[in-house]
Amino acid sequence: MTTLQTQSLLPSVAIDCVVFGFHENELKVLLLKLKNIDLWALPGGFVNQGVDLDSEALNALEIRTGLDNIFLKQFHTFGSIERNDTDHNRMLVDKKVIDPEWFEWFDQRFISVGYYALVEYSQVREPIPGPISEACEWCSVNDLPPLMLDHRHILETAHMTLKTELNNQPIGLNLLPKRFSIPELQSLYETILGKKLDRRNFRRKVMSFDILVCTNERRTGVAHKAPLLYEFDEEKYHAAHQAGLSSGW
Amino acid sequence: MTTLQTQSLLPSVAIDCVVFGFHENELKVLLLKLKNIDLWALPGGFVNQGVDLDSEALNALEIRTGLDNIFLKQFHTFGSIERNDTDHNRMLVDKKVIDPEWFEWFDQRFISVGYYALVEYSQVREPIPGPISEACEWCSVNDLPPLMLDHRHILETAHMTLKTELNNQPIGLNLLPKRFSIPELQSLYETILGKKLDRRNFRRKVMSFDILVCTNERRTGVAHKAPLLYEFDEEKYHAAHQAGLSSGW
Repeated sequence: MTTLQTQSLLPSVAIDCVVFGFHENELKVLLLKLKNIDLWALPGGFVNQGVDLDSEALNALEIRTGLDNIFLKQFHTFGSIERNDTDHNRMLVDKKVIDPEWFEWFDQRFISVGYYALVEYSQVREPIPGPISEACEWCSVNDLPPLMLDHRHILETAHMTLKTELNNQPIGLNLLPKRFSIPELQSLYETILGKKLDRRNFRRKVMSFDILVCTNERRTGVAHKAPLLYEFDEEKYHAAHQAGLSSGW
Repeated sequence: MTTLQTQSLLPSVAIDCVVFGFHENELKVLLLKLKNIDLWALPGGFVNQGVDLDSEALNALEIRTGLDNIFLKQFHTFGSIERNDTDHNRMLVDKKVIDPEWFEWFDQRFISVGYYALVEYSQVREPIPGPISEACEWCSVNDLPPLMLDHRHILETAHMTLKTELNNQPIGLNLLPKRFSIPELQSLYETILGKKLDRRNFRRKVMSFDILVCTNERRTGVAHKAPLLYEFDEEKYHAAHQAGLSSGW
């Protein structure tokens, strides 16, 4: 097992990352399968004394996904006293998920700073398991395996945040391929929101944001007439992300 | 000086509260004046091992303002390594702001969970100073005194969050008296946003939210014809708060 240098870590503080990807009309999330037990966890980690919190979240993600320079957003810090569960931690030692030496470290009360990320599914080649996990896989948010501690709550809070932010921010830049059709964009929205949207209203609304550029190309190799492909105007996209999509006051 | 029972506190974690009030067309914020030095701080504190993070934020606020049951929102966790400043902490000991016994505790690296609150100015009778402060006062956000560490950055981040949320959420319930005129509500928005709004557009937009109830009364004792007074429909207000004001998808 890897040695955990706990003396260089900030006590009481953990990080959990909810990494969303979009694939075959499903919203997926990156999860770690713990060793020796049917229990899964969000990727994350601890904070080195000499490293900024936000940088540690990016580090954790880069290690698991190989992706750097991704959109990572702090969404909530989880600080309930019930997060700590000594029985659960003993069980992890019993099952040889964590080394007995680590028990004391794992069994302290942690607050966890939650981050979410939207990544392009196709660019994450092979997620890499960590020291306490044996696999790292994309799981559908609608069919989650059993998750450790409050990780399901953290994941659901991230999903809820994403839904709310859809009302005020553009989305898609890191979830879709560079070129996409309006029906593909609509499908992304429908997947995140978990409901069907009206085709014409969706098109009208999304066009009104003025963040799409039509490439005048169509996807090749499809049987019936393929829809036009679009790209995001990245400058306008980022500006809308900053300012919000609402008309404002 | 009060004894700080540091052994019962969670290491590395602090709380800072940005408490906004609205008075005489100014957005104000509650600040503590440190003892023996011209330096101010946001009210906040540390987290007891046995107490939830969110409860500690409410406790800190109740102690300073006497208000309970207030709208308190976690908005960001500040985790830069530059937050820790040993020279600054030594200076606080030299100036007898903090007891030399506390130096070690204060000089650890803290991440700080930021909360903001909107309180009705008139209901906070006399803010109460804390163990390291000699006064607790409402200061205008446009004319801030010197603030310790990164407290100005925390305050400005809270203000920015509030401005952004104005696009998606109703505001006013805890900032205005129970009954208010539309011009008074507009004045609140203008103060938070730091800009003038068009009177007719504001009225039309705010009425479209369907969260106001007209009382058919007017403020008495004003010379010219007084505007009608409104109240929030609290049920609709809270529903809009949950769902967001945008039309949604």
